[in-house]
Amino acid sequence: MQHNNLLKQLAFIKEIDKLKYIQRKTRLFNSDRHENDAEHSWHLAMMTIVLATHSNKQIDVLKVLKMVLIHDIVEIDAGDTFIYDTVKNHTNTAEELTAAKRIFGLLPKEQADEFLAIWEEFEEGITDDAKFAKSMDRFEPLLQNTSNNGGTWAEFNVPYQKVYDKKKAIKEGSTTIWNYE
Amino acid sequence: MQHNNLLKQLAFIKEIDKLKYIQRKTRLFNSDRHENDAEHSWHLAMMTIVLATHSNKQIDVLKVLKMVLIHDIVEIDAGDTFIYDTVKNHTNTAEELTAAKRIFGLLPKEQADEFLAIWEEFEEGITDDAKFAKSMDRFEPLLQNTSNNGGTWAEFNVPYQKVYDKKKAIKEGSTTIWNYE
Repeated sequence: MQHNNLLKQLAFIKEIDKLKYIQRKTRLFNSDRHENDAEHSWHLAMMTIVLATHSNKQIDVLKVLKMVLIHDIVEIDAGDTFIYDTVKNHTNTAEELTAAKRIFGLLPKEQADEFLAIWEEFEEGITDDAKFAKSMDRFEPLLQNTSNNGGTWAEFNVPYQKVYDKKKAIKEGSTTIWNYE
Repeated sequence: MQHNNLLKQLAFIKEIDKLKYIQRKTRLFNSDRHENDAEHSWHLAMMTIVLATHSNKQIDVLKVLKMVLIHDIVEIDAGDTFIYDTVKNHTNTAEELTAAKRIFGLLPKEQADEFLAIWEEFEEGITDDAKFAKSMDRFEPLLQNTSNNGGTWAEFNVPYQKVYDKKKAIKEGSTTIWNYE
Protein backbone atom coordinates (compact mmCIF):
# COMPACT_ATOMS: atom_id res chain seq x y z
CA MET A 1 0.00 0.00 0.00
CA GLN A 2 2.80 2.39 0.94
CA HIS A 3 4.59 1.50 -2.33
CA ASN A 4 1.40 2.08 -4.30
CA ASN A 5 0.92 5.44 -2.61
CA LEU A 6 4.50 6.40 -3.44
CA LEU A 7 3.95 5.67 -7.14
CA LYS A 8 0.89 7.92 -7.15
CA GLN A 9 2.77 10.65 -5.30
CA LEU A 10 5.65 10.52 -7.76
CA ALA A 11 3.23 10.80 -10.69
CA PHE A 12 1.85 13.96 -9.06
CA ILE A 13 5.33 15.36 -8.35
CA LYS A 14 6.27 14.93 -12.02
CA GLU A 15 2.98 16.36 -13.28
CA ILE A 16 3.24 19.60 -11.30
CA ASP A 17 6.61 20.36 -12.93
CA LYS A 18 4.41 21.89 -15.64
CA LEU A 19 3.62 24.82 -13.33
CA LYS A 20 7.09 26.15 -14.22
CA TYR A 21 5.87 26.79 -17.78
CA ILE A 22 2.76 28.81 -16.87
CA GLN A 23 3.59 32.46 -17.47
CA ARG A 24 1.93 35.20 -15.46
CA LYS A 25 1.21 38.70 -16.71
CA THR A 26 3.36 40.24 -13.99
CA ARG A 27 7.11 40.67 -14.28
CA LEU A 28 9.95 40.20 -11.82
CA PHE A 29 11.11 43.16 -9.74
CA ASN A 30 12.71 45.93 -11.83
CA SER A 31 12.59 43.61 -14.80
CA ASP A 32 11.01 42.79 -18.15
CA ARG A 33 11.06 39.06 -17.48
CA HIS A 34 7.65 37.49 -16.83
CA GLU A 35 7.20 35.44 -13.70
CA ASN A 36 6.00 31.85 -13.84
CA ASP A 37 3.57 30.22 -11.44
CA ALA A 38 6.16 28.07 -9.62
CA GLU A 39 8.36 31.08 -8.85
CA HIS A 40 5.30 33.07 -7.82
CA SER A 41 4.16 30.30 -5.46
CA TRP A 42 7.61 30.10 -3.88
CA HIS A 43 7.63 33.85 -3.32
CA LEU A 44 4.20 33.76 -1.67
CA ALA A 45 5.42 30.99 0.62
CA MET A 46 8.40 33.11 1.65
CA MET A 47 6.14 36.13 2.19
CA THR A 48 3.84 34.01 4.34
CA ILE A 49 6.70 32.94 6.62
CA VAL A 50 8.11 36.45 6.87
CA LEU A 51 4.85 38.39 7.24
CA ALA A 52 2.65 35.97 9.23
CA THR A 53 2.89 38.02 12.40
CA HIS A 54 1.15 40.92 10.64
CA SER A 55 -2.02 38.90 10.09
CA ASN A 56 -5.17 40.44 11.56
CA LYS A 57 -6.12 37.09 13.04
CA GLN A 58 -4.14 34.16 14.37
CA ILE A 59 -3.35 31.86 11.44
CA ASP A 60 -2.16 28.30 10.96
CA VAL A 61 1.09 29.01 9.08
CA LEU A 62 1.47 25.43 7.83
CA LYS A 63 -2.06 25.50 6.38
CA VAL A 64 -1.47 28.89 4.71
CA LEU A 65 1.81 27.60 3.24
CA LYS A 66 -0.02 24.65 1.74
CA MET A 67 -2.60 27.06 0.28
CA VAL A 68 -0.11 29.35 -1.42
CA LEU A 69 2.08 26.47 -2.63
CA ILE A 70 -0.81 24.68 -4.36
CA HIS A 71 -3.18 27.55 -5.21
CA ASP A 72 -2.14 27.90 -8.86
CA ILE A 73 -1.64 24.22 -9.72
CA VAL A 74 -5.06 24.16 -11.45
CA GLU A 75 -3.58 26.55 -14.03
CA ILE A 76 -1.60 23.63 -15.49
CA ASP A 77 -4.88 22.71 -17.19
CA ALA A 78 -6.91 25.92 -16.95
CA GLY A 79 -4.21 28.52 -17.72
CA ASP A 80 -3.52 31.83 -16.01
CA THR A 81 -6.49 34.21 -16.04
CA PHE A 82 -5.42 37.84 -15.68
CA ILE A 83 -7.02 39.20 -12.52
CA TYR A 84 -8.23 42.29 -14.41
CA ASP A 85 -9.60 40.29 -17.33
CA THR A 86 -12.85 41.96 -18.46
CA VAL A 87 -14.30 38.90 -20.19
CA LYS A 88 -13.40 35.84 -18.16
CA ASN A 89 -14.05 35.78 -14.44
CA HIS A 90 -11.14 34.44 -12.45
CA THR A 91 -13.09 33.05 -9.56
CA ASN A 92 -13.30 29.29 -9.29
CA THR A 93 -14.43 28.48 -12.80
CA ALA A 94 -15.83 25.07 -13.71
CA GLU A 95 -12.63 24.61 -15.73
CA GLU A 96 -10.50 25.13 -12.64
CA LEU A 97 -12.53 22.67 -10.59
CA THR A 98 -12.14 20.02 -13.27
CA ALA A 99 -8.40 20.72 -13.26
CA ALA A 100 -8.20 20.45 -9.48
CA LYS A 101 -9.97 17.10 -9.53
CA ARG A 102 -7.74 15.70 -12.26
CA ILE A 103 -4.39 16.90 -10.90
CA PHE A 104 -4.95 16.43 -7.14
CA GLY A 105 -6.66 13.17 -8.11
CA LEU A 106 -3.27 11.75 -9.10
CA LEU A 107 -2.48 11.53 -5.36
CA PRO A 108 -3.64 8.81 -2.96
CA LYS A 109 -7.29 9.49 -2.06
CA GLU A 110 -6.71 10.93 1.41
CA GLN A 111 -4.17 13.46 0.13
CA ALA A 112 -6.24 14.26 -2.94
CA ASP A 113 -9.21 15.10 -0.72
CA GLU A 114 -7.02 17.24 1.56
CA PHE A 115 -5.53 19.23 -1.33
CA LEU A 116 -8.92 19.77 -2.96
CA ALA A 117 -10.37 21.01 0.33
CA ILE A 118 -7.42 23.37 0.92
CA TRP A 119 -7.68 24.74 -2.63
CA GLU A 120 -11.44 25.29 -2.26
CA GLU A 121 -10.93 27.00 1.10
CA PHE A 122 -8.44 29.34 -0.55
CA GLU A 123 -10.76 30.09 -3.48
CA GLU A 124 -13.70 30.83 -1.19
CA GLY A 125 -11.54 33.22 0.83
CA ILE A 126 -13.74 33.13 3.92
CA THR A 127 -11.57 31.64 6.68
CA ASP A 128 -8.78 33.62 8.37
CA ASP A 129 -6.18 31.34 6.79
CA ALA A 130 -7.63 31.89 3.32
CA LYS A 131 -7.87 35.65 3.84
CA PHE A 132 -4.20 35.86 4.75
CA ALA A 133 -3.19 33.61 1.83
CA LYS A 134 -5.19 35.80 -0.56
CA SER A 135 -3.65 38.95 0.85
CA MET A 136 -0.20 37.54 -0.03
CA ASP A 137 -1.43 36.69 -3.53
CA ARG A 138 -2.58 40.30 -4.05
CA PHE A 139 0.43 41.90 -2.38
CA GLU A 140 3.21 40.33 -4.47
CA PRO A 141 2.10 41.82 -7.85
CA LEU A 142 1.53 45.16 -6.12
CA LEU A 143 5.18 45.16 -5.00
CA GLN A 144 6.24 44.08 -8.50
CA ASN A 145 4.14 46.66 -10.32
CA THR A 146 5.32 49.52 -8.14
CA SER A 147 8.93 48.48 -8.95
CA ASN A 148 8.09 48.43 -12.67
CA ASN A 149 6.53 51.86 -13.33
CA GLY A 150 2.98 50.65 -12.88
CA GLY A 151 3.67 47.26 -14.48
CA THR A 152 0.56 45.41 -15.62
CA TRP A 153 -1.74 48.24 -14.45
CA ALA A 154 -0.08 50.62 -16.89
CA GLU A 155 0.46 47.99 -19.58
CA PHE A 156 -3.20 46.97 -19.70
CA ASN A 157 -4.58 50.37 -18.73
CA VAL A 158 -6.43 49.06 -15.66
CA PRO A 159 -8.53 51.79 -13.97
CA TYR A 160 -7.46 52.78 -10.46
CA GLN A 161 -10.81 51.74 -8.99
CA LYS A 162 -10.43 48.18 -10.30
CA VAL A 163 -6.97 47.90 -8.79
CA TYR A 164 -8.30 49.25 -5.51
CA ASP A 165 -11.22 46.80 -5.48
CA LYS A 166 -8.90 43.81 -6.00
CA LYS A 167 -6.30 45.03 -3.54
CA LYS A 168 -8.82 45.45 -0.74
CA ALA A 169 -8.23 41.74 -0.11
CA ILE A 170 -4.93 42.73 1.46
CA LYS A 171 -6.78 44.62 4.18
CA GLU A 172 -8.84 41.51 4.91
CA GLY A 173 -5.62 39.65 5.66
CA SER A 174 -3.50 42.34 7.28
CA THR A 175 -4.37 45.91 8.19
CA THR A 176 -0.70 46.58 8.98
CA ILE A 177 0.37 45.76 5.43
CA TRP A 178 -2.61 47.66 3.96
CA ASN A 179 -1.73 50.76 5.96
CA TYR A 180 1.88 50.57 4.84
CA GLU A 181 0.73 50.90 1.27
CA MET B 1 8.49 49.23 15.65
CA GLN B 2 6.06 47.10 13.65
CA HIS B 3 6.32 49.58 10.76
CA ASN B 4 10.11 49.47 10.94
CA ASN B 5 10.03 45.67 10.90
CA LEU B 6 7.74 45.70 7.88
CA LEU B 7 10.16 47.90 5.94
CA LYS B 8 12.98 45.48 6.65
CA GLN B 9 10.82 42.52 5.69
CA LEU B 10 9.85 44.14 2.40
CA ALA B 11 13.50 44.83 1.60
CA PHE B 12 14.17 41.11 2.12
CA ILE B 13 11.15 40.08 0.02
CA LYS B 14 12.38 42.21 -2.88
CA GLU B 15 15.98 41.02 -2.53
CA ILE B 16 15.13 37.32 -2.73
CA ASP B 17 13.41 37.86 -6.10
CA LYS B 18 16.97 37.39 -7.44
CA LEU B 19 16.73 33.67 -6.67
CA LYS B 20 14.62 33.40 -9.84
CA TYR B 21 17.71 34.23 -11.91
CA ILE B 22 20.02 31.58 -10.41
CA GLN B 23 20.20 28.75 -12.92
CA ARG B 24 20.82 25.19 -11.79
CA LYS B 25 22.64 22.56 -13.83
CA THR B 26 19.59 20.30 -13.82
CA ARG B 27 16.77 20.59 -16.33
CA LEU B 28 13.01 20.33 -16.00
CA PHE B 29 11.33 16.97 -16.50
CA ASN B 30 11.62 15.69 -20.08
CA SER B 31 13.03 19.04 -21.07
CA ASP B 32 16.09 21.01 -22.17
CA ARG B 33 15.12 24.01 -20.06
CA HIS B 34 17.30 24.62 -16.99
CA GLU B 35 15.59 24.97 -13.64
CA ASN B 36 16.14 28.03 -11.48
CA ASP B 37 16.51 28.04 -7.70
CA ALA B 38 13.07 29.51 -6.95
CA GLU B 39 11.28 26.83 -8.99
CA HIS B 40 13.48 24.18 -7.42
CA SER B 41 12.67 25.41 -3.91
CA TRP B 42 8.94 25.39 -4.67
CA HIS B 43 9.18 21.83 -5.95
CA LEU B 44 11.02 20.67 -2.82
CA ALA B 45 8.31 22.28 -0.68
CA MET B 46 5.62 20.39 -2.59
CA MET B 47 7.60 17.14 -2.29
CA THR B 48 7.95 17.73 1.46
CA ILE B 49 4.20 18.09 1.90
CA VAL B 50 3.42 15.07 -0.27
CA LEU B 51 6.15 12.72 0.97
CA ALA B 52 6.46 13.67 4.66
CA THR B 53 4.76 10.47 5.84
CA HIS B 54 7.61 8.43 4.31
CA SER B 55 10.20 10.00 6.61
CA ASN B 56 12.17 7.53 8.73
CA LYS B 57 11.62 9.72 11.78
CA GLN B 58 8.81 12.00 12.88
CA ILE B 59 9.49 15.43 11.40
CA ASP B 60 8.26 18.97 11.98
CA VAL B 61 6.79 19.65 8.52
CA LEU B 62 6.65 23.42 9.03
CA LYS B 63 10.35 23.50 9.98
CA VAL B 64 11.30 21.33 6.98
CA LEU B 65 9.27 23.60 4.68
CA LYS B 66 11.18 26.61 5.97
CA MET B 67 14.45 24.74 5.34
CA VAL B 68 13.72 23.84 1.75
CA LEU B 69 12.20 27.25 0.94
CA ILE B 70 15.27 29.16 2.15
CA HIS B 71 18.10 26.63 1.62
CA ASP B 72 19.36 28.12 -1.66
CA ILE B 73 18.90 31.83 -0.91
CA VAL B 74 22.64 32.14 -0.17
CA GLU B 75 23.24 31.40 -3.86
CA ILE B 76 22.03 34.91 -4.69
CA ASP B 77 25.52 36.00 -3.62
CA ALA B 78 27.50 32.77 -3.74
CA GLY B 79 26.11 31.22 -6.95
CA ASP B 80 25.07 27.64 -7.62
CA THR B 81 27.87 25.12 -7.03
CA PHE B 82 27.32 21.91 -8.99
CA ILE B 83 27.06 19.08 -6.49
CA TYR B 84 29.55 17.00 -8.51
CA ASP B 85 32.01 19.88 -8.88
CA THR B 86 35.52 18.44 -8.58
CA VAL B 87 37.22 21.69 -7.61
CA LYS B 88 34.91 23.63 -5.35
CA ASN B 89 33.34 21.93 -2.37
CA HIS B 90 29.65 22.67 -2.03
CA THR B 91 29.40 22.30 1.71
CA ASN B 92 28.87 25.47 3.68
CA THR B 93 31.65 27.56 2.24
CA ALA B 94 32.79 30.76 3.91
CA GLU B 95 31.27 32.53 0.90
CA GLU B 96 27.86 31.02 1.64
CA LEU B 97 28.00 31.97 5.30
CA THR B 98 28.80 35.57 4.39
CA ALA B 99 25.87 35.51 1.97
CA ALA B 100 23.52 34.09 4.62
CA LYS B 101 24.50 36.81 7.06
CA ARG B 102 24.01 39.59 4.52
CA ILE B 103 20.70 38.41 3.04
CA PHE B 104 18.98 37.08 6.19
CA GLY B 105 20.43 40.14 7.92
CA LEU B 106 18.02 42.34 5.95
CA LEU B 107 15.25 40.99 8.20
CA PRO B 108 14.44 42.17 11.74
CA LYS B 109 16.99 40.64 14.12
CA GLU B 110 14.78 37.91 15.59
CA GLN B 111 13.81 36.61 12.15
CA ALA B 112 17.35 36.96 10.81
CA ASP B 113 18.62 34.79 13.66
CA GLU B 114 15.87 32.21 13.08
CA PHE B 115 16.58 31.95 9.33
CA LEU B 116 20.33 31.71 9.87
CA ALA B 117 19.84 28.93 12.43
CA ILE B 118 17.48 27.01 10.13
CA TRP B 119 19.89 27.34 7.20
CA GLU B 120 22.80 26.13 9.34
CA GLU B 121 20.76 23.21 10.64
CA PHE B 122 20.00 22.23 7.04
CA GLU B 123 23.64 22.53 5.97
CA GLU B 124 24.87 20.43 8.89
CA GLY B 125 22.32 17.73 8.03
CA ILE B 126 22.34 16.12 11.47
CA THR B 127 18.81 16.53 12.82
CA ASP B 128 15.90 14.44 11.56
CA ASP B 129 14.32 17.54 10.00
CA ALA B 130 17.55 18.39 8.15
CA LYS B 131 17.99 14.79 6.99
CA PHE B 132 14.54 14.75 5.47
CA ALA B 133 15.02 18.17 3.85
CA LYS B 134 18.32 17.01 2.35
CA SER B 135 16.74 13.83 1.06
CA MET B 136 14.22 15.96 -0.87
CA ASP B 137 17.06 18.09 -2.25
CA ARG B 138 18.83 14.97 -3.56
CA PHE B 139 15.69 13.25 -4.81
CA GLU B 140 14.36 15.97 -7.13
CA PRO B 141 17.38 15.99 -9.51
CA LEU B 142 17.38 12.19 -9.49
CA LEU B 143 13.79 12.23 -10.75
CA GLN B 144 14.72 14.90 -13.32
CA ASN B 145 17.84 13.12 -14.55
CA THR B 146 16.09 9.80 -14.97
CA SER B 147 13.46 11.58 -17.09
CA ASN B 148 16.22 13.18 -19.19
CA ASN B 149 18.39 10.21 -20.29
CA GLY B 150 20.83 10.59 -17.42
CA GLY B 151 20.66 14.40 -17.44
CA THR B 152 23.55 16.07 -15.67
CA TRP B 153 25.19 12.72 -14.81
CA ALA B 154 25.58 11.95 -18.51
CA GLU B 155 26.26 15.55 -19.52
CA PHE B 156 29.14 15.96 -17.08
CA ASN B 157 30.23 12.32 -17.13
CA VAL B 158 29.82 11.84 -13.38
CA PRO B 159 30.98 8.36 -12.22
CA TYR B 160 28.28 6.09 -10.80
CA GLN B 161 30.02 5.88 -7.44
CA LYS B 162 29.90 9.66 -6.98
CA VAL B 163 26.20 9.75 -7.76
CA TYR B 164 25.64 6.91 -5.33
CA ASP B 165 27.63 8.64 -2.57
CA LYS B 166 25.59 11.83 -2.92
CA LYS B 167 22.27 10.06 -3.21
CA LYS B 168 22.81 8.06 -0.03
CA ALA B 169 21.43 11.13 1.74
CA ILE B 170 18.00 10.04 0.53
CA LYS B 171 18.25 6.91 2.65
CA GLU B 172 19.06 9.01 5.70
CA GLY B 173 15.72 10.80 5.23
CA SER B 174 13.50 8.02 3.96
CA THR B 175 14.22 4.33 3.52
CA THR B 176 10.91 3.92 1.70
CA ILE B 177 11.90 6.37 -1.02
CA TRP B 178 15.42 4.93 -1.21
CA ASN B 179 14.07 1.41 -1.68
CA TYR B 180 11.74 2.60 -4.43
CA GLU B 181 14.74 3.77 -6.40
